[in-house]
Amino acid sequence: MMNVTFFQQLVDSISERGRELIGWGERGSSALDIQTLCNDLLSGRGEASGVALADEVFQIYAELDIADRQDFFRYLAESLNANPDKVLAAADAYRADPSPARLLALHLAAEPQRQELLRRLNRASGGTANLVRMRSDLLKLLPDFPELKVVDDDFFHLFSSWFNRGFLVLRRIDWQTPAALLEKIIKYEAVHEINDWPSLRRRLAPDRRCFGFFHPALVDEPLIFVEVALVKSIATQIQPLIDREQKELDPARADTAVFYSISNCQHGLKGVSFGNFLIKQVVAELQQELPQLKHFVTLSPIPGFMRWLNNERRTEHSSVLSDAQRTLLEQLDAPEKCGRTKNDAGQHAALQTELLSLAAYYFLQAKNPTGKPLDPVARFHLGNGARLERINPEADLSAKGLRQSAGMMVNYAYVLADIERNHEAYANDNTVVTTSAVRKLLRSDAASATTK
Amino acid sequence: MMNVTFFQQLVDSISERGRELIGWGERGSSALDIQTLCNDLLSGRGEASGVALADEVFQIYAELDIADRQDFFRYLAESLNANPDKVLAAADAYRADPSPARLLALHLAAEPQRQELLRRLNRASGGTANLVRMRSDLLKLLPDFPELKVVDDDFFHLFSSWFNRGFLVLRRIDWQTPAALLEKIIKYEAVHEINDWPSLRRRLAPDRRCFGFFHPALVDEPLIFVEVALVKSIATQIQPLIDREQKELDPARADTAVFYSISNCQHGLKGVSFGNFLIKQVVAELQQELPQLKHFVTLSPIPGFMRWLNNERRTEHSSVLSDAQRTLLEQLDAPEKCGRTKNDAGQHAALQTELLSLAAYYFLQAKNPTGKPLDPVARFHLGNGARLERINPEADLSAKGLRQSAGMMVNYAYVLADIERNHEAYANDNTVVTTSAVRKLLRSDAASATTK
Amino acid sequence: MMNVTFFQQLVDSISERGRELIGWGERGSSALDIQTLCNDLLSGRGEASGVALADEVFQIYAELDIADRQDFFRYLAESLNANPDKVLAAADAYRADPSPARLLALHLAAEPQRQELLRRLNRASGGTANLVRMRSDLLKLLPDFPELKVVDDDFFHLFSSWFNRGFLVLRRIDWQTPAALLEKIIKYEAVHEINDWPSLRRRLAPDRRCFGFFHPALVDEPLIFVEVALVKSIATQIQPLIDREQKELDPARADTAVFYSISNCQHGLKGVSFGNFLIKQVVAELQQELPQLKHFVTLSPIPGFMRWLNNERRTEHSSVLSDAQRTLLEQLDAPEKCGRTKNDAGQHAALQTELLSLAAYYFLQAKNPTGKPLDPVARFHLGNGARLERINPEADLSAKGLRQSAGMMVNYAYVLADIERNHEAYANDNTVVTTSAVRKLLRSDAASATTK
Amino acid sequence: MMNVTFFQQLVDSISERGRELIGWGERGSSALDIQTLCNDLLSGRGEASGVALADEVFQIYAELDIADRQDFFRYLAESLNANPDKVLAAADAYRADPSPARLLALHLAAEPQRQELLRRLNRASGGTANLVRMRSDLLKLLPDFPELKVVDDDFFHLFSSWFNRGFLVLRRIDWQTPAALLEKIIKYEAVHEINDWPSLRRRLAPDRRCFGFFHPALVDEPLIFVEVALVKSIATQIQPLIDREQKELDPARADTAVFYSISNCQHGLKGVSFGNFLIKQVVAELQQELPQLKHFVTLSPIPGFMRWLNNERRTEHSSVLSDAQRTLLEQLDAPEKCGRTKNDAGQHAALQTELLSLAAYYFLQAKNPTGKPLDPVARFHLGNGARLERINPEADLSAKGLRQSAGMMVNYAYVLADIERNHEAYANDNTVVTTSAVRKLLRSDAASATTK
Repeated sequence: MMNVTFFQQLVDSISERGRELIGWGERGSSALDIQTLCNDLLSGRGEASGVALADEVFQIYAELDIADRQDFFRYLAESLNANPDKVLAAADAYRADPSPARLLALHLAAEPQRQELLRRLNRASGGTANLVRMRSDLLKLLPDFPELKVVDDDFFHLFSSWFNRGFLVLRRIDWQTPAALLEKIIKYEAVHEINDWPSLRRRLAPDRRCFGFFHPALVDEPLIFVEVALVKSIATQIQPLIDREQKELDPARADTAVFYSISNCQHGLKGVSFGNFLIKQVVAELQQELPQLKHFVTLSPIPGFMRWLNNERRTEHSSVLSDAQRTLLEQLDAPEKCGRTKNDAGQHAALQTELLSLAAYYFLQAKNPTGKPLDPVARFHLGNGARLERINPEADLSAKGLRQSAGMMVNYAYVLADIERNHEAYANDNTVVTTSAVRKLLRSDAASATTK
Repeated sequence: MMNVTFFQQLVDSISERGRELIGWGERGSSALDIQTLCNDLLSGRGEASGVALADEVFQIYAELDIADRQDFFRYLAESLNANPDKVLAAADAYRADPSPARLLALHLAAEPQRQELLRRLNRASGGTANLVRMRSDLLKLLPDFPELKVVDDDFFHLFSSWFNRGFLVLRRIDWQTPAALLEKIIKYEAVHEINDWPSLRRRLAPDRRCFGFFHPALVDEPLIFVEVALVKSIATQIQPLIDREQKELDPARADTAVFYSISNCQHGLKGVSFGNFLIKQVVAELQQELPQLKHFVTLSPIPGFMRWLNNERRTEHSSVLSDAQRTLLEQLDAPEKCGRTKNDAGQHAALQTELLSLAAYYFLQAKNPTGKPLDPVARFHLGNGARLERINPEADLSAKGLRQSAGMMVNYAYVLADIERNHEAYANDNTVVTTSAVRKLLRSDAASATTK
Repeated sequence: MMNVTFFQQLVDSISERGRELIGWGERGSSALDIQTLCNDLLSGRGEASGVALADEVFQIYAELDIADRQDFFRYLAESLNANPDKVLAAADAYRADPSPARLLALHLAAEPQRQELLRRLNRASGGTANLVRMRSDLLKLLPDFPELKVVDDDFFHLFSSWFNRGFLVLRRIDWQTPAALLEKIIKYEAVHEINDWPSLRRRLAPDRRCFGFFHPALVDEPLIFVEVALVKSIATQIQPLIDREQKELDPARADTAVFYSISNCQHGLKGVSFGNFLIKQVVAELQQELPQLKHFVTLSPIPGFMRWLNNERRTEHSSVLSDAQRTLLEQLDAPEKCGRTKNDAGQHAALQTELLSLAAYYFLQAKNPTGKPLDPVARFHLGNGARLERINPEADLSAKGLRQSAGMMVNYAYVLADIERNHEAYANDNTVVTTSAVRKLLRSDAASATTK
Repeated sequence: MMNVTFFQQLVDSISERGRELIGWGERGSSALDIQTLCNDLLSGRGEASGVALADEVFQIYAELDIADRQDFFRYLAESLNANPDKVLAAADAYRADPSPARLLALHLAAEPQRQELLRRLNRASGGTANLVRMRSDLLKLLPDFPELKVVDDDFFHLFSSWFNRGFLVLRRIDWQTPAALLEKIIKYEAVHEINDWPSLRRRLAPDRRCFGFFHPALVDEPLIFVEVALVKSIATQIQPLIDREQKELDPARADTAVFYSISNCQHGLKGVSFGNFLIKQVVAELQQELPQLKHFVTLSPIPGFMRWLNNERRTEHSSVLSDAQRTLLEQLDAPEKCGRTKNDAGQHAALQTELLSLAAYYFLQAKNPTGKPLDPVARFHLGNGARLERINPEADLSAKGLRQSAGMMVNYAYVLADIERNHEAYANDNTVVTTSAVRKLLRSDAASATTK
């Protein structure tokens, strides 16, 4: 249905006029031109020719170099705020009479014009995708130009509304999915790399599931996807789940769904959260399809463990580590020492025991300034109402797994009846809900301080 | 893919607890309950079980009677505003330093909590459709309860963002369309009623076109649709366009597309404007499909003409009407006198001439307080950049047509190259762009004051 | 994907040459031309340009008048047989050595060239649909031109192979189906007329089902469809099933599926049987969707009853009718006497009792020369393995129902475990499998001869 | 829509009875059982429970070992012929009166019962796919058991009718196609192997096209597909067309479509010809999509060249080869001598010249006993009406290309206006239509005998 004749002519006539008005040739004319077009879009011209103008803005933007884009974002930050006089007048009116009507008037008066500009840009064909790309550019500039953060705040505010869970569509991804989309799964997989198409094929076999959230305005672009293995009993190692030669299991015989990978796909949607909803909806899908499933768990990395541990090791008088532990941990400094082909099996076993104990400490005792666990993946799942189910030694012996967490991985369990209670305990009291097995891993001297 | 087992259990367990906590039985418990659930949704519980809670809110809302719904909207209006202290503090901070960052902080501080509630309700399955229905209820209450307008403002603000043109999908509607959707075309047609299925079939024949905008979250519900007849030369009468026995024309031989009906479908989206975009995109579609088309015009009603004219007739010393005109117009008081089967053909012709003249006056001279034409349809098309092309006598001899406009209809022309200029002339200077033929209809004594 | 440029040029160049070769203008040239093209299609030209030639044949055929079409079919009957010498030589060879190889050689030698022509015509785009239409024309000519039956036999032979059950697709038809297809359901319904779209809508409501068989080469053309009502207990009257105001039943509460209408749609496929497969597959679909269903029955007309009965009444010494019965049956001669608003209720009841008894006789005792029941609908369902379940008085009080069967209708039951046994009893021994209730309806003096 | 409850029960009950009747346990019972079921299917039981019986036959067949399958085919060959008495009687009747009606009667009497059995087996769900697999098994047995050829003849006869071009669907295959289908493209590619997914991706890029024929009864199974490269000027080498790193061309700038690979996919459909139709329809598609295309040519292998040449070399007094040629051709015996990295560039050039000349001889002068060219690919394209356009030296330097044709490839051109004339010249007179350039390659002493 897409057709551009009419709009294209409109765009062309606009460009024509734009060129006449502004003059072309010197460097930066596009950068000026895009500001003129944005101002037009916010004015009456935008009402008559809004879609065409928005198309034109994106065409020019696409050709801007990095310096010009920076100028463009600075223009957004500085020139498209609200009218201060009107804002202050609305504030005074509200102070005099804090009624709902005056609150709303103040809210609207204080809305940066940027938000309206972004809404109008969104009218272009492919507008949403272009705005997501635009924010991705902006995010890369933010560390060097913190004054642009107000622009990002407006992007974030609108994206949070537009990518509301109610607008997302859950789609199963399998071997019947178009290759153009599967290619993106390979590209976006962020946890356990997919090396080639036969590996992907294994991850989409009948005893695997993959689901993604999609937004109708971003055709064939997943926002986030999760990979699930259907297995017998809770998985404690990652390799059998992603090995492309692994034998298939009849899904009807599985009792456990293991969520072993979850990947966000759109850098430009950073901070807009989908994972929480995705996991819960996929649990629902799987329960419907395979009512015999008993366990819904993740097999998750512990990305911050080794960073924390090495920090403690560098700390001279760490309260966490004894001298004996320090000695034992020296094995870690030669990466191969965590493998299984150990000369000294006893040493190796002792190390693993110690690592489990330290991991329990890391999850249950080590806290960030707000009282939450240090581990970001733990914060995500605990915040969703999951339970810290089990810590698995030698679960991921890849270079990355050894580097991050000395090879350990962890299961978080999603148990329907407990989700809300777990969430509240975590949110209100920083409680890390876990099992007695995990608590037992704490050394006795540390255990006394354990939560719950 | 829709599955509710998991969420249903979650909903059930929440309801269960809700009943325990609140107690049921006495009247109004649901009304209280829905407020509790909304508060929960805005709190931490909403983060853990958001979709389920939102589902529950809609289930309870569906069973509320009108009095309870009114209570619910009052709760939204009164209890879900912002924290005044924080708002005033943010206002003071902005006053001290009117930076972009502080503006945004004030904007966010002044956002009514209602908006966040509506965003969270939208996460429910079918949430968007339910919110549209909810606003429809609210709109019916507004005339009697103007204090609820602040709630409507928030609905409107969010819907304008969510139903952004960039999220709409244009779909052609024809005889291959599912009956369940066609049924809605019959129901929603607001201009020229569709009496039965054979009449609808004629309107979807090969020399007709029908296009609608759809939103992915409102499955099989059109937001707005337009009906187009492909004809030879500009149509001056409605009957041949909607007569179910009218002979079909080979579309390849048409030179004109007549937009003869445009209907908004969703009461709950009142004020969110789609028509502007729809007409322009359909022009583009038709140009692409049938490049030989030369004219894109409407055949539109003049809904305010007789109201205005009768008002002038009632005014004792109207500057518009002469005594001779008043006498001539007495024919209108017997509705059959505008038909063609006149005894006194001369009288009839004189009346038609006079009506055309008065219609030209009505469009070009009669203005509302803002200086725009009185006629709402005229304001819509002129605001879109169309030109007032022609006034047609005896164009709609239905009871409604005679009652509204003494049988006259009008063509507005959409000419690509002029749209933007027309729009600006109209928007900035109130200029009604028209043809010399229309201007000539003004009686000479009136013509002197004609615009442009 | 449809494109005709290349083929169109090919067709044009062929036509061009055709016109040169044959000369145009005198009547009947097309009729000659089509024969030339058919001969070409069977020759080498058909191998190079087969699709284009076949297209051309159908284009010319479409413009032939009835006389020319008759000529065309006569050409098919007379000119496209096998080579007699080769046939007889193959027959002699087989006689000398009746081996499988020589049998096949004889079979192929005796294949009329018509079959190959029809297969090559089928290569045209839309070829299958055109051939079905062609046979429909032929069938209309057959009564007057029985010598064309050999042509029809070839059509039938190929259609039986092409419309093999393995190539048919079962599709559910409901209110989500495109109007263009629903329109055909209205048109093709052959048992209980569908008066308008609201009536159709009722027949497609949630407590109704409609399924059709489709063939991929006949797009959007049903071959046959069946209408089913989901009800509580076996339906004994047709009116509640087709009344558009009938209240809907929650399908989950139904225990019976009533097949109340089955219609063949394509005259050109006459004799190719689908109904047998359709009913059984729909039973399977419904069992899957609604496992609580207990009964699968038809509610069927008795199209031959009154014809048979009136014949007996006209027969002076019928062994079937007693004088008392003859008197009672005189009520039937005034059609309103079968209605329920009787003055003499006793007379009416006596008539109904007698009619049931006679209907039982008609089904169980009256036979055609092959020993099967007289009623064609009975032969169809009994041949499928169904059981004659119940005879219902005053079940169809429409004019047609009264005329055909004095208002009676009958249920045939499809019981999985018995289908094969029933079929064999019927096929081998002419046994009409029925219930004791039906058998009891036979008058005692007649009952002695009842089957089974 | 697929549902098996009902049929499954039917199948189970049939199997149950089958087991009772036949007795299980000893080897070969299945082989007997399948014959019993086939006989049932041809009898009345097939009419009542046809689909279920056919399902059962395929289930048993799937478990038969190779010896039992051979028995099954022998049963088909020997037991399911026609009744000889009836055949001979029909033959006598036809001899007495060779009317169309008696011809048809003879044809039908001589039809082996196998054909009806295959038609009834086809009613099973997935029946067509199973029959295609069954014939594939049969084809493997044929060389050792030539008496089974009569069975294959019946398969072939029915498949030719069922896979009529009118029932095939042309589908474009591209990067939006499901991976499960693309995987089959990789598997079935028979001309230029596709090594991996990135190679496939290149062959489906915007300047490439791939189209396949599909049959509705074989879901997601291509029957045949063709790969096309859009290029500027006629391609003379294969490597740039299949190199996965090759730069993409804007399709709007191409003037030539090169059909560089065409692969049949279904062994069980051997001999049923699709390629002729596919190439012509794809030419039509491409003309429609890209009207600027001027040339439609293949880039084809010459599979028989080296076999023929080596045969001539082995022949002591070949009339084809001179002693000088023989010496030159000795370079071929070291495969690397056909590469480009030659020490002796002069020798290499002389060899290439000689090879071209010999190839021209091979195409134009060397004939099989029927007077057609020796090369099967040449026979295919010339039979389709293409022209031998050009012979390209060093066009395929892969091991296979060197082995088959000393690296040469050939272009066949499809020119609309000439296809039919070319076909007829070839079919009737064995004329190889070619260009003067190709003819000039013939050495003068050979050229005298060249066709045309």
